[in-house]
Amino acid sequence: MSRKSIGVGLMGLGVVAGQVARVLTEKAADLEEKIGCPLVLRKIKVLPEDLSRPQAREMSSGLFTTSDDDFFQESDIDIIVEAIGGENPALGYHRRALKSGRHVVTSNKELIAKHGVELLELAHQHNVSLQYEASVGAGFPLIAPFKHDLVANRITGIFAIINGTTNYILTMMDRKGSDFAATLAQAQKLGYAEANPENDIEGFDSNYKLAILASLAFNMRVRPQDVYREGITRLAPRDFRYARELGFTIKLLAIAKQNEDTVEARVHPVFIPQETLLAKVDGVYNAVQVMGDLAGRVLFMGEGAGPLATSSSVVADVVGVARKIVLGIGSLSTWKAASGKRIKPIDDIETQYYIRLNAADQPGVLAKIATVFGDNEISIASAIQPESDEATGTAEIVIMTHPAMEKAMQKALRELGKLEVVNEINNCIRVEEIEGG
Amino acid sequence: MSRKSIGVGLMGLGVVAGQVARVLTEKAADLEEKIGCPLVLRKIKVLPEDLSRPQAREMSSGLFTTSDDDFFQESDIDIIVEAIGGENPALGYHRRALKSGRHVVTSNKELIAKHGVELLELAHQHNVSLQYEASVGAGFPLIAPFKHDLVANRITGIFAIINGTTNYILTMMDRKGSDFAATLAQAQKLGYAEANPENDIEGFDSNYKLAILASLAFNMRVRPQDVYREGITRLAPRDFRYARELGFTIKLLAIAKQNEDTVEARVHPVFIPQETLLAKVDGVYNAVQVMGDLAGRVLFMGEGAGPLATSSSVVADVVGVARKIVLGIGSLSTWKAASGKRIKPIDDIETQYYIRLNAADQPGVLAKIATVFGDNEISIASAIQPESDEATGTAEIVIMTHPAMEKAMQKALRELGKLEVVNEINNCIRVEEIEGG
Repeated sequence: MSRKSIGVGLMGLGVVAGQVARVLTEKAADLEEKIGCPLVLRKIKVLPEDLSRPQAREMSSGLFTTSDDDFFQESDIDIIVEAIGGENPALGYHRRALKSGRHVVTSNKELIAKHGVELLELAHQHNVSLQYEASVGAGFPLIAPFKHDLVANRITGIFAIINGTTNYILTMMDRKGSDFAATLAQAQKLGYAEANPENDIEGFDSNYKLAILASLAFNMRVRPQDVYREGITRLAPRDFRYARELGFTIKLLAIAKQNEDTVEARVHPVFIPQETLLAKVDGVYNAVQVMGDLAGRVLFMGEGAGPLATSSSVVADVVGVARKIVLGIGSLSTWKAASGKRIKPIDDIETQYYIRLNAADQPGVLAKIATVFGDNEISIASAIQPESDEATGTAEIVIMTHPAMEKAMQKALRELGKLEVVNEINNCIRVEEIEGG
Repeated sequence: MSRKSIGVGLMGLGVVAGQVARVLTEKAADLEEKIGCPLVLRKIKVLPEDLSRPQAREMSSGLFTTSDDDFFQESDIDIIVEAIGGENPALGYHRRALKSGRHVVTSNKELIAKHGVELLELAHQHNVSLQYEASVGAGFPLIAPFKHDLVANRITGIFAIINGTTNYILTMMDRKGSDFAATLAQAQKLGYAEANPENDIEGFDSNYKLAILASLAFNMRVRPQDVYREGITRLAPRDFRYARELGFTIKLLAIAKQNEDTVEARVHPVFIPQETLLAKVDGVYNAVQVMGDLAGRVLFMGEGAGPLATSSSVVADVVGVARKIVLGIGSLSTWKAASGKRIKPIDDIETQYYIRLNAADQPGVLAKIATVFGDNEISIASAIQPESDEATGTAEIVIMTHPAMEKAMQKALRELGKLEVVNEINNCIRVEEIEGG
């Protein structure tokens, strides 16, 4: 099948969309060589306010339309790149695009995490593709490895730093000893955190991405609400100091594990050993470690955000779809839930814990605290009292446990909170060994 | 197009072939689910001596044949997995397989590096695929990222640890301070180095792999003889000690860079800064860092050898080809040399250098040495004299240079060798900054 050209329609004109348009234009000759057919940007669906953006001035005004109907009725569009983000109106646009027989490429993690199964099924019905490589780990491959390269493996674990904003904040808190609020403010000033940072710092972004990865890796539907989620807002400079002294680094990890008949998926701050490679992934970088029964430990690292990196994966998906159009292949979109595994509730996970609390500085306090842990069958690995405050008669106590059940730990924390000698439980952070380092 | 089954023929019965056969058998149901059609191992071409191997006893004896004609005349074989390795007789088998319309999957780096272009062209002529993901970075994806995921990028650099044997030896020399010969002997005893270790320790294996990666990354033909190659046999414990003191780690790196109109490709020991991620890749792990104009820095890490890891990529390739057979697609094998760039000779590269030499312990020696460097326009960054031997009246001198031309450095080394005060030039090791860390 020989074609004159393949048409691309772009939805949105933010920084990612602008960069995608730039790559399609500037690298047109190179992409044509790789596809065997020219790729032509035919229409850009914008909002009226987009037209005043700097990226709008780079492009021919004839490309723009503010009308959905105009955009979808353009007959020469084969592939639609949705670069709007968020759940709505993107969901409606995806449905309309797929139903009209257009292939769709997106970096929209929230949409894929929440509606990926439905949309992939829709793509399949209409014999078109839905590709979303840029939705996780913007500039480096993660979706393709699970779909193709690791396909012969039973995936047992995923340990992922998949949010650059929080990794940047944690790196800075660790290096500078500054507190969370000040570091966040600085990150916002530098453009590494958004004005409304909740999506990143509360772990929603990591949650969406882990839902996508776990669904692919375990061949089952893992929804965002199946993923346990805790953000990084409770971390204090002294948690970083104690972590370092104990040989750990604090990271916001997205963790998914496949056990005999359950799957666990969770996003929360963790202590990981300093000598692991993940502990050394700093700043805005992302890294994902995958454990497979054949491949062993595999690690992917790269930029997790930013228009350039995102455009790399978006355009790769466009090229992939275009090559299939040239070959006359329709839908390759599948995401069949095969395994009948259930999601393990967070209460049932087993891990080690770091607990920092403030207690009365008097004899017998540690014994009372230790008794609570013992009564809940939690074994203490170490207990230190690094600081005491003579003026208030209080002391800070840091406890590391051996592996324990989450349910037992939560019960112990409630009981500790009721002890008269305990003034405050400042933090409880899970400790992960990271299989294979 | 609906098919009853897809037939696989296996050539060889070494540990990799045995493991591939095991995966095809044990994971048959899972692979069928992923392909949409059963994958059936139909024939194994063996040598008579293979039949006494342990892996032979796991399989039905009806699968084996020692006759090439028997094997190639088996009509139900769609995909041939060549797991013999080496140039011959593998080359003849590949030609025969492709000409008879069979898709081929291999982990044979030497064959692909030397004859990949010819074989891919042959595959294309016969409308079949030739896949070789396992030829570089056994257990993790490297070929697929260059073909697909990074396709929109102009690749500017590749920095790769792609030989596990040498990385294990260097890690042990660094940790234990032992010399090369003893460490190699220990590695051989543990099965990490072969009885005849030349292919690994002289850099041939890395050379083949870099030729494959550079050809893909730069879209041109890079032959093994285009890659400059130096092994690790000259490294001494004191090189590791000085490297550490100066803030570096010694690795055998495969480096490829794309400049304006040239490409450089070289395999040799290097000093790399301790804080880079590549410096932290220890033991038998492999890691490849790629720099792209859009993606930025991307790093892939995993097991670089071993039957389990290799089978992961071999079976992934088999599944990929099988999916295409189910979809009715023939050849996707292309490796068109597009760019007309020339290979930069090693003489023309520019880098920094570490030089360790033994000289007379007398006043004015350093001035004479510095004059030679100065005359060759090489600027010295630091010169230290860490040890002197009063009995022999000699001193060890360690010099670090600023960036200099290789040609100038080689000339300077020849001139230094002629100085009466210089007893021996012990080592000269290139220093790489590793773009992006």
